Amino acid sequence: MTDLPEPLADRTVAVLGGTGPQGRGLARRWATAGLPVVLGSRSAERAEEAAAALAADTGGRVTGADNAAAAAAGDVVVVAVPWDGHADLLRELAGPLAGKVVVDCVNPLGFDKQGPFALAVEEGSAAQQAAALLPDSVVVGAFHHVSAVLLDDPEVAEVDTDVLVLGDDRDATDLVRALADAIPGMRGVYGGRLRNAHQVEALTANLIAINRRYQSHAGIRVTDV
Amino acid sequence: MTDLPEPLADRTVAVLGGTGPQGRGLARRWATAGLPVVLGSRSAERAEEAAAALAADTGGRVTGADNAAAAAAGDVVVVAVPWDGHADLLRELAGPLAGKVVVDCVNPLGFDKQGPFALAVEEGSAAQQAAALLPDSVVVGAFHHVSAVLLDDPEVAEVDTDVLVLGDDRDATDLVRALADAIPGMRGVYGGRLRNAHQVEALTANLIAINRRYQSHAGIRVTDV
Repeated sequence: MTDLPEPLADRTVAVLGGTGPQGRGLARRWATAGLPVVLGSRSAERAEEAAAALAADTGGRVTGADNAAAAAAGDVVVVAVPWDGHADLLRELAGPLAGKVVVDCVNPLGFDKQGPFALAVEEGSAAQQAAALLPDSVVVGAFHHVSAVLLDDPEVAEVDTDVLVLGDDRDATDLVRALADAIPGMRGVYGGRLRNAHQVEALTANLIAINRRYQSHAGIRVTDV
Repeated sequence: MTDLPEPLADRTVAVLGGTGPQGRGLARRWATAGLPVVLGSRSAERAEEAAAALAADTGGRVTGADNAAAAAAGDVVVVAVPWDGHADLLRELAGPLAGKVVVDCVNPLGFDKQGPFALAVEEGSAAQQAAALLPDSVVVGAFHHVSAVLLDDPEVAEVDTDVLVLGDDRDATDLVRALADAIPGMRGVYGGRLRNAHQVEALTANLIAINRRYQSHAGIRVTDV
């Protein structure tokens, strides 16, 4: 457990989709860093099971709940659900998410014979869709490119990547940068306004293409920053 | 002058828009690396002047010509013109560009009070527009994120960035990766098919936002590759 940076003190992080590989991987890292974490899932039972396993594994404070209860419990709420259920879930949870910082990690991608590609999103991006559906929350886009495999592997001590953090509210993007900084190897870098989230989400298609070509778990570093 | 990698042997690189900052910066680096370079510009006279200055500065083989003559002279032709004139120029030069590898570096961006943003492109991206207008060329997207300031500064020995190289033809993307590798500090990384070029072009808006926030000349490195 490291000392938490000031913006994270006493913050509980809820992870919606916390039993999926990306959500669980992020939760594992934050629990290891000493943050209280609530895993959310459609099934409270599955969330509780996954939380108990993570708590045992990390020695951290991890509990589980259904997504609505997790959303209510978190001070910061990370959305790591499949693109398919993104809009419906957020529409449902607009009440409990009001007044909170919501971190959208979702990548709207399609796959065909030629591999991955970016889907068109009416609002521009998943993050902008979240902002449209959650007018009383502060939406930040981040953690799009992190490898679920590396995050969820307890043998991997450091995750070698920068996290581009997008948003229109400086306090919120600073908070989410601190969430990235809390994970060893990771660094949060401000990446622009929410209207520039599409290309960051879509770049995940390129990283998947890179992983296929180079047999890697590619991440991104920003140089000269 | 370094030994050129095999795919670049005896290749002349033409740079359309070679008197603009990005084009001239790339030309400077390739001339320094020992590649014969032809600067193209709307005005043959301005191209010849810029070429003479670059040749004197680098000791390399640099000549200048109007864009059409440069396109005809190059084995590989780099398109580094403003987005505004992109379609018109390529439509005009489809003849001389036939049978060649065309490297599109163009970023369709807009700017307003809130800073940079990605423009929508009917074909999906500048690179895909080039491919549509040049059916007899092999189009590759690359060099979107390189800092013109760093490239064109002879005091900067190494340009610390990876170059994402996008295309559907393996030989062509390998050739363009070698063009990136020929510049000290730079590395060419395959970045996916041409249909995934939009987000790489658009990411330039994020890098500009990063530069404004951090007072940097940000580039991108791909980790684990």
